[in-house]
Amino acid sequence: MKNTADPLEPKADKDTVRRHNLSLVLRAVHDEGEATRAAVAARVGLTRAAVSSLVEQLLAGGFLTEQGKTFSGQAGRPGTALRVARTGPAGLGVEVNIDYVSVCVVDLAGSDRVRLTEHVDNRGVAPAEVLERAARIAARTLTSAAGQDLHPAGARLALPGLVSGGTVRQAPNLGWNRVAAETLFARALGALRPGRPAPAVGSDNEANAAALAELWFGVGAGPERVRGFLYLSGEIGVGGAVVVDGELMRGAHGFAGEIGHAVADAEGPRCRCGSRGCLEQYAGQAALLRGAGLDETAGMPGVAELERRARAGDARTVAALERAGRMLGLVLSGAVNLLDPEAVVLGGIYRPLMPWLGPAVDRELTLRVVSGLWPEGSGRLRASSSSGDAARGAAAAVVRGVVADPAGYAVRAVR
Amino acid sequence: MKNTADPLEPKADKDTVRRHNLSLVLRAVHDEGEATRAAVAARVGLTRAAVSSLVEQLLAGGFLTEQGKTFSGQAGRPGTALRVARTGPAGLGVEVNIDYVSVCVVDLAGSDRVRLTEHVDNRGVAPAEVLERAARIAARTLTSAAGQDLHPAGARLALPGLVSGGTVRQAPNLGWNRVAAETLFARALGALRPGRPAPAVGSDNEANAAALAELWFGVGAGPERVRGFLYLSGEIGVGGAVVVDGELMRGAHGFAGEIGHAVADAEGPRCRCGSRGCLEQYAGQAALLRGAGLDETAGMPGVAELERRARAGDARTVAALERAGRMLGLVLSGAVNLLDPEAVVLGGIYRPLMPWLGPAVDRELTLRVVSGLWPEGSGRLRASSSSGDAARGAAAAVVRGVVADPAGYAVRAVR
Repeated sequence: MKNTADPLEPKADKDTVRRHNLSLVLRAVHDEGEATRAAVAARVGLTRAAVSSLVEQLLAGGFLTEQGKTFSGQAGRPGTALRVARTGPAGLGVEVNIDYVSVCVVDLAGSDRVRLTEHVDNRGVAPAEVLERAARIAARTLTSAAGQDLHPAGARLALPGLVSGGTVRQAPNLGWNRVAAETLFARALGALRPGRPAPAVGSDNEANAAALAELWFGVGAGPERVRGFLYLSGEIGVGGAVVVDGELMRGAHGFAGEIGHAVADAEGPRCRCGSRGCLEQYAGQAALLRGAGLDETAGMPGVAELERRARAGDARTVAALERAGRMLGLVLSGAVNLLDPEAVVLGGIYRPLMPWLGPAVDRELTLRVVSGLWPEGSGRLRASSSSGDAARGAAAAVVRGVVADPAGYAVRAVR
Repeated sequence: MKNTADPLEPKADKDTVRRHNLSLVLRAVHDEGEATRAAVAARVGLTRAAVSSLVEQLLAGGFLTEQGKTFSGQAGRPGTALRVARTGPAGLGVEVNIDYVSVCVVDLAGSDRVRLTEHVDNRGVAPAEVLERAARIAARTLTSAAGQDLHPAGARLALPGLVSGGTVRQAPNLGWNRVAAETLFARALGALRPGRPAPAVGSDNEANAAALAELWFGVGAGPERVRGFLYLSGEIGVGGAVVVDGELMRGAHGFAGEIGHAVADAEGPRCRCGSRGCLEQYAGQAALLRGAGLDETAGMPGVAELERRARAGDARTVAALERAGRMLGLVLSGAVNLLDPEAVVLGGIYRPLMPWLGPAVDRELTLRVVSGLWPEGSGRLRASSSSGDAARGAAAAVVRGVVADPAGYAVRAVR
């Protein structure tokens, strides 16, 4: 049924067709990294003349650049390689997490071009104040980006909680309830940049944004092209996201992926979410630090110390990580039985700690995944790639919006 | 991008177009239940003349029937109502479960027209023998169906285990490992019906098949049209299936949905799957019966007795069901946090036991679902409808294959 045009759909007028074709051409170059006009024409199924005309428009609009002759054997323009522009259209990603804010601007290729991260404790701070702080960091990032001639089409927040319709319904570790995050951020950023157009602001759960980065720049972009995986983001909370067939599974209300509140032990300690024995209580950052005898509020320096001690073979640290890995594996086995993903990707603080967490997780998966497809060393359990995080995923989602409708970019760009 | 025809796709030749259009028209009538030619034309976007010609072919082929005049105010053929035929094309569904085999033939509308169920213990019996038994029951069902002039286009098995590519990879409660179920069943059925064409045989997990029945004839077909839900099938094992946007989520290897082996208690009793403390050990049929002081091998009569005692207010029975409900709720809360479904549907033996299981499940969901969208009485937790089971789901899947390509039916039908 997929290839059947819906007869009820209004006929596309000429402008709609042109906008759509501009997107087809831009997307072809975006996805290929580099392509000649002939290759683009072959991919999108338009004539070379039509593609040449669309390419001219995209060159003039600053979406594409030409890279000189290729070795196609033909001289002249048709053989030159097209790439997406390294300046101009861009995306702004803003991760507001419990103990840091990380902002980045990516270019049309999705490359991280400006990054500003501040380690600050956002707990117990009013939501409006946290988002003002994020806006200040974003404003500075935008200034740097403008210096590189990068102009985001919009901003996207990545937040550690249940996000839907621009609002954080619940973020237990921040103590947020029904916070209109997009509005508060947009207002704060507008106030910091008087006289300039406010960017369109979107939002998503931070693990969702990180999973998209993993899909677009990590396991999904690698030689295996893993299109379905369960992503876990170890932070102060434990976030999660499910990718199926190259798309995020969002659930009925946009709240899918909350694996941090799966029950690891029904009678376990109270969790901020109101339940008991959630995975977060055993495998969240505080639990890892506490288990190893470190200050559970020590943040990223604490995690670095944890890694240092594990590397040095400190028995208490190694045992604490193994306990956490067992609980992670316990919950993950249930999720794997339910979802049957191609891979499980552990990100955030789990990434550096994988050498000590991984074997314990693997043992539980071997024992408890009923398909038997997850024996130790199967390679299905893996650390996240270093190339993606929530801020980059959020920024890249903005850029994908530009690629999907370059003609609409001019009206959206932040300058 | 969805409405863009793939330029690389070969041009459809005339016969392909006709086959496709036959399917469009048949599907329109199938989905609407009853429709005039004019209504079909409006829905599929073909001319009335083209639709009339296609309808004639479908009438001649026995896929459609005419139901006399409608009250459209117009006299003559164009105003008569079309329905799918109640004879001819059909589907055969064969559920082989631990302690019963249930076979049905459904007609083009998906209605259950012939049903034969035998309560037999399939444990400890060689797979080939179990499938021969199923084939015998199927052969009798086919004879009854032929008496009603119903001729299945194929058979589909519904099996309590991990099913992929025609093979049961693992069915712990049957003790099956890598059983070529489709081949064994087809061979046995062929031997029972010498000289007749063997039907094409497909297969699926029984909870998947039951979830499809729920989607097509239960919650998915009701006034709310629930298109995403988690389905649990309480039997000797606990099966599960995930429906997202009106489609089964199958997972990377076809093994998604195995919620029965989610860990309810890490240190719990050994499960046949090799793990410990699986949900099945607390909420499977044996555990329910044992908990209430009944013979855990008593099968369906035991479940009936359980229900009778619960209804009579027997304290031990009620407490046992509440304990099981708590474990169900514990595991379900994790699945709901991960999937964010619209609804959770409890089928199989859970359906009659819902009055006693439900409140305990609800309490755990209220406490542990982080979105807060699952308070007691939210109505998101529900018993399965009485209209669907695995055999009907499997049979209806065969029928959907006929609707998708009626022109191919003649070569597939079992007579």
